Parts: sequence; structure tokens; C-alpha cells
Amino acid sequence: MITLDTEWLGEPAGSGEMEKALEEAALAAGILESGEGPGGEFTGWVDLPERISGTCLGEMESLAAEIRSGADALVVTGIGGSYLGTRAVLEALGSDFPVYFAGRDLSPESLGELLDTLRDKRFYVNYISKSGGTLEPALAFRFLKKLLQEQVGDNWRSRVVATTDKSRGKLRNMAQREGLRSFPVPESVGGRYSVITAVGLFPLAVAGVDIRALVEGARAMRKICRQPDSPALRYGALRTLLKDRGRTIEVLAVYDPSLEALTGWWKQLFGESEGKDRQGLFPASVTFTTDLHSLGQWIQEGPEVLLETVLEIGSADRDLSVPAEENDDDGLGFLEGKSLDWINRMACRGTLDAHRDGGTPGIKLSIARKDAFSLGGLLYFFMYACGVSGYMQGVNPFDQPGVEAYKKNVFSLLREDGGK
Amino acid sequence: MITLDTEWLGEPAGSGEMEKALEEAALAAGILESGEGPGGEFTGWVDLPERISGTCLGEMESLAAEIRSGADALVVTGIGGSYLGTRAVLEALGSDFPVYFAGRDLSPESLGELLDTLRDKRFYVNYISKSGGTLEPALAFRFLKKLLQEQVGDNWRSRVVATTDKSRGKLRNMAQREGLRSFPVPESVGGRYSVITAVGLFPLAVAGVDIRALVEGARAMRKICRQPDSPALRYGALRTLLKDRGRTIEVLAVYDPSLEALTGWWKQLFGESEGKDRQGLFPASVTFTTDLHSLGQWIQEGPEVLLETVLEIGSADRDLSVPAEENDDDGLGFLEGKSLDWINRMACRGTLDAHRDGGTPGIKLSIARKDAFSLGGLLYFFMYACGVSGYMQGVNPFDQPGVEAYKKNVFSLLREDGGK
Repeated sequence: MITLDTEWLGEPAGSGEMEKALEEAALAAGILESGEGPGGEFTGWVDLPERISGTCLGEMESLAAEIRSGADALVVTGIGGSYLGTRAVLEALGSDFPVYFAGRDLSPESLGELLDTLRDKRFYVNYISKSGGTLEPALAFRFLKKLLQEQVGDNWRSRVVATTDKSRGKLRNMAQREGLRSFPVPESVGGRYSVITAVGLFPLAVAGVDIRALVEGARAMRKICRQPDSPALRYGALRTLLKDRGRTIEVLAVYDPSLEALTGWWKQLFGESEGKDRQGLFPASVTFTTDLHSLGQWIQEGPEVLLETVLEIGSADRDLSVPAEENDDDGLGFLEGKSLDWINRMACRGTLDAHRDGGTPGIKLSIARKDAFSLGGLLYFFMYACGVSGYMQGVNPFDQPGVEAYKKNVFSLLREDGGK
Repeated sequence: MITLDTEWLGEPAGSGEMEKALEEAALAAGILESGEGPGGEFTGWVDLPERISGTCLGEMESLAAEIRSGADALVVTGIGGSYLGTRAVLEALGSDFPVYFAGRDLSPESLGELLDTLRDKRFYVNYISKSGGTLEPALAFRFLKKLLQEQVGDNWRSRVVATTDKSRGKLRNMAQREGLRSFPVPESVGGRYSVITAVGLFPLAVAGVDIRALVEGARAMRKICRQPDSPALRYGALRTLLKDRGRTIEVLAVYDPSLEALTGWWKQLFGESEGKDRQGLFPASVTFTTDLHSLGQWIQEGPEVLLETVLEIGSADRDLSVPAEENDDDGLGFLEGKSLDWINRMACRGTLDAHRDGGTPGIKLSIARKDAFSLGGLLYFFMYACGVSGYMQGVNPFDQPGVEAYKKNVFSLLREDGGK
């Protein structure tokens, strides 16, 4: 389902050092499975793929069908883990229904443009917030609700679906009072681990993604992760080992632009889980081959602080053959009739070789296809590996204490007088 | 025109250390101006804004007008510096004419989708390549030329505009033989410093951007950069100083999603200019506030290796007031009637405070408006500062020797047998 290739690590793997790292990864996985490590109360996602019921998925599919048949668009309103996973899967697989994102920032220009677009459309809002008090989605929801009221008056209530805590919080209170339809976010699952809950599954169902296949993929990967020496354990062990050897940045490289949003989800997952107590590899991303003409130089000859993790898809959904050219002006005649996907794959191999020789070790992860099943597995793979490396580094991979500092400052500035 | 704020540097500025860095920056600027440093043959961009003639701009505007009135779309075909600057300005300012990008990658899916989109459209191609031998744009051009030939037969020649070396190279040869219209890329300007040449200016004119204002802005900034202690010298000095103090990553933060493409241009500029001889700050980027819910935690409490440079725009082109809410479910009633742009600005200030207190020093750069004049100035500012910090770090900021390694590998794999 997923393979991990260590051919480009540079230094020989399988040494005593690697065995030790794998033992530590197995210990970390044991802590993760037990739910008794730091943040253990937020490890509900670990066996969730096995627990999600068909009834529960059916409810999402049925409301999704109502929206797909009766509306022009869905507006996913949420920030961080409330949209990154959905966007990652949507961009990778494509959507056959218009899905917009709101509440991700405070830019009046982007919100204004979205409101202009929605003015003549019949739209639903999926407001996703565990608490309902987060600044960006709460403000965006005020605008969206106002527009819905202008469009359909009191019927705005039938156009809003709340995804929030089962029983508590500001959004749950509003949903109850107004009689909104809603889905629960399990209490034991934090935002960045929530893509395989209603947070990701419901909007993805509206977009036409096969959410049962997505859950099946996560379930299959959950079984794999239980095995000793699973790819998730090896990935967690390797990246922690490379960090201990002095690497400070992990670059996730993809060769398919439709996977760029997935790298955004990955950056939140690892960045927010590990970046505390002065720990963590800084997560960065590149889309090749375009960024070979941008950050490639740095990766090849900059300071030796990088680890490059490459995510490859077994075969593209669509391929093209290089057309013939009478004059061969570009000198690429030897590629005529060749598959563009094959050329892209050779670029991946040649680049991994070059970067390793330049001092940047590479880990190659491959999945067979870009479909819902494989993506479900991949998302689970990364979450599990993240829990493992977080525990290996001695941090709580499930909290985010550092985001309070800026929030406190911002709210104190906003409460001061002088605002326009 | 641009202000540089050091309030968030953490450690006191203006100490002897800073004065020394400024002196070194002034020396580096002298080398840059003289054209006698390493790579001096590629410093033609330094005084180019003062040398671009009205005639030259007029030619671009006139061909742009032909395309705007007679076609449905322009396809910019180029990679790295041949598209990043154009995309940066386009996304920041918006376009009133459809512009697509091709030749940026080897993905058959994205090229296939673009060809589908173009099939029923009357389109022009602006093929941008100094040599004409770069793999990605050359392959994409084969497909685009074939489609044009299917659409208009021999008239494909009137639909292709070549931007390339004045007299040499594969693309110049083809342009001459086929009688294509063309614009020159000055020999003394490398890809990542070429946005204020025909490389950026011509497609931007097609998109409806005021390219005279863009050049005016660069010209005004060029004057400022000549002054001692100019913001460009101070920025170059500060980031080099922070690197010497142990910072390894510079994160460029924007608070306006339309500036995200600008951070992509910035990453190429600094990454490819500095990342050699094991030098350079690794360039990363974040779009706030959304990434405060992603990488914010790492910036606040991860290893103390970051420098955060924030780019702020004086005032948004459009603003919205927070609507009232009867029940104040979100508890944000105290913000009713307040400007969203002001809230965004407070988020910027509060976050700079929090990150500085968490151990990440910040530099704030501000420009007054997001218009063509200010952006022209900003682009020039970054290029000049990049030349200065490159020389301060002892590298040649104008070559990219490290990109040959992967190219050699890839071409050798492509020439082997066995390709599909």
C-alpha cells in the first residue's frame, strides 16, 4: 500500500544506529497505542477508522446528496485542521461539485470576492469549529449568515451544517438553539488529526469523493501500522535519526502539482505536533520539477541541514506522448513518442541521486495510485508516523500551547480602543 | 516607498555589530554597482529600470493590445524566473485577461487539463526561455504548437511570441527561421532577476497591468537603493547578521493571500542566489493568519533557528465591516462595525510581538499600497538586497551551478533505453 525506499539516504542504513532508532519507534508506537502518553486523551483517531459506522457515513452521504442536487455550491468555513485535510484530498482527486473555503484568513479582499461570487448562488455552509470561538471562521460565518438571510430569510437555518463538539461550546449552543443540522467532532481527536472524521468526510462527500473508500484505505493502513517495522515506524525512526544527526529541515517534495495542498496539510501535521520544547524538524515543501528551478540550487549546495522526503505516485491517471517536431529545434527529438509521466519519473530518480550526492539524504515514499483508498491510507500513515516521531522526540504531539501567545496579544489589541 | 521596522528584532539594534554589518553591506553594494564582483556580467538588471525606453515599452503594449482584442487567452510558457515574477504581480494585482501558465512541470495531468481548456479557445503563446533547451517549457511548447497547428495551420506563427536571447540559442534560431515576433532578454540579466524585462513586462501588459507604473516604481527604488543606509542595505545587513548569529531559516510572512505567489518569487530569488558553497538562509514562506493555525506553533516554540520577515501592505484595496449578530454566539460582539482590514493588521502586530517573545526575531517591511508602482519598487528592493547579502556571504549571487547535477542525471536516464 505504501513503500519506503532508503536507497537515497546516503549513509548506510541498517547499522546499529538504525536498529536502535527502530526500537525506540516501536516503544513510541506502544505509548501511542496505549493512550497513556502525553496528550493520550487526544489519540481517539488511532482506531477511529475501524470504529466509524456505515450508519454514520450514510448520514453524511445523505445530507451530501441533498446539497449536490439542490444547491450550486458548498462553503467550508474553518481554519487549520478544519480545512487543510479536505483541501488536500479535493485537490488531489478533483471535485465534481463547487466547494469554496472561507474563514481561513482575515483578508477583506478574499472574503469580499467570495461574497460577490456567492451572491447569485444557492449555497450551503459547513461551519467547522470544535469550539465556535475561533476568530477567522466566526467572523466569516457572520458575513455568510447575513448573506443567507438576505437570500432566504429564516430558511438560512436549513442551509447551515455545523461540525462541532458533540455537546459543548459556542457553535454547539447555536446549533441547538437554531435547530441546525450537525455532525460531531469526537472529543478525543484534535484538529490536525481529524480528516477521517466528519470534519473531512462530510465536505468530501459533497464534493463527490468516495468517502467509504477513503475510510477503507485508512483502515487498511491502520492494520499495517500495527505490524513491527511498518513503513510508518520506519519513517518516524528515520526522520528522528536524521534530526539527531543534525538535520533541521524536512522538505516534502511532490512531482504532481495536484498534491501541493497535501504538502500544506503535512506541514501543519508535523509542524504543530513537533514544534515545541525547541524540538522538531522545520517542515517545508517543494513541487518539482518547477521548484528545481527555484529551491533546487539550495538543496544541492546549501548548508547540509536538509532531509528530502519524496512522495511518488505509481502511475498518473492520464498520460501524454511527446509530439514529433520536424526541425527538432529544442534538441529533444530523442524523446518523441515517450510518455510524459515516464519523463517525470526519471526526473524524480535523477534528482534524488543528485541531491544525495550533494549532501541531502532522501527518503522516497510511494503509493500505487492517486485514488480515495490510497489517499486514506496515506493520510493515516502520516498521522501515525507523526505520533511516533513526536513521542520519540519527547514532546506531546497532540497539543499546541504556543498558539495561545499570539491569540492573547491579538485579542488584547482588538479590545483596546481606537479600532476603526 | 518602503519602510523597514526593527522593533521586533529582540536584541537591541544599532549596537557595534549592526554598524559593522551596515558597513559590510555598503561595501557589498559597491561591488554590486561596480559590476566587478563574482557574476558581475549578470548585473545588467541593476540600472535597467533607468535604461528601459518608452519605445521598448510601447512595442510590448502594442502587441499586448493585439492579443487583448483578438484572442481569448495567453499561455505563458516558461519555468523558474521565466514565470515566477509574472505570476507574483498577476496574483497581487489581478488580471482582466485570462493568462495561463505552461511548461512549469512534467505532469501529464496538468498539461492535459490545460490543453483541454485551450481546445476551443483562440490563444497566443509567449514562449520564454533564454536558451530554448530547457526540458519543461520545450516539451510543453511541442504540445502547444501542435494544438495551434490543428487550430490555424500555418498561421501558428502569428500566435507565438518568443522572449529569448537577442542573437543566440535554440529558441532564437527557431524564431528567426519561422519569422516569429520576439522580445530580447538582455544577456546581462539572469532568470530570477528578469521580472523588469520583457520576460515579465510583456505578459503583464497582456494581463492589463500598468507596466509603465511598474517600471517607474523600480526606477524610484533604484534611486533609493543608491543612498547610504537604504532599506535594501539594512535588510541585507540584518538578515546576514542574523545568519551569523545562528539563524538558518528565513520565513517570509504575508497577511494577504494574493501575495502568496510573491513569496514564491522571493524564495527562488534568495534560494538560488545564496544557496551555494554551503551558505544561505533557507527561504520558507507562510500566509497568515491561516498558517498561524499550521506553522505558528513551530515559530513560537520550535528550535530558535528562524528569522521572520513580515511584508505588510499599508491599506487593503477593499474593506468590510463586521456585521452585528443578535445572539453574539461567538462572543465577538465587541468587534461589530470594526474594519476587517484593521483586525488583520492587529493580528500582524500581536503575532510579531508573540513570536519575538518566543525567540523568533522579526523584520517588518511595509509598502503603502498594492499597486503596480509599489510592486515594481518592492521587486527591485528584494533583488538589490539579495545581491547585497549574497556578496556579504561571499557567494556569487548570479550563478546556479548546482542545478547542473540533477539535469545531467535526468538527461542520462532519459537517453538510456527502456522508456515508454
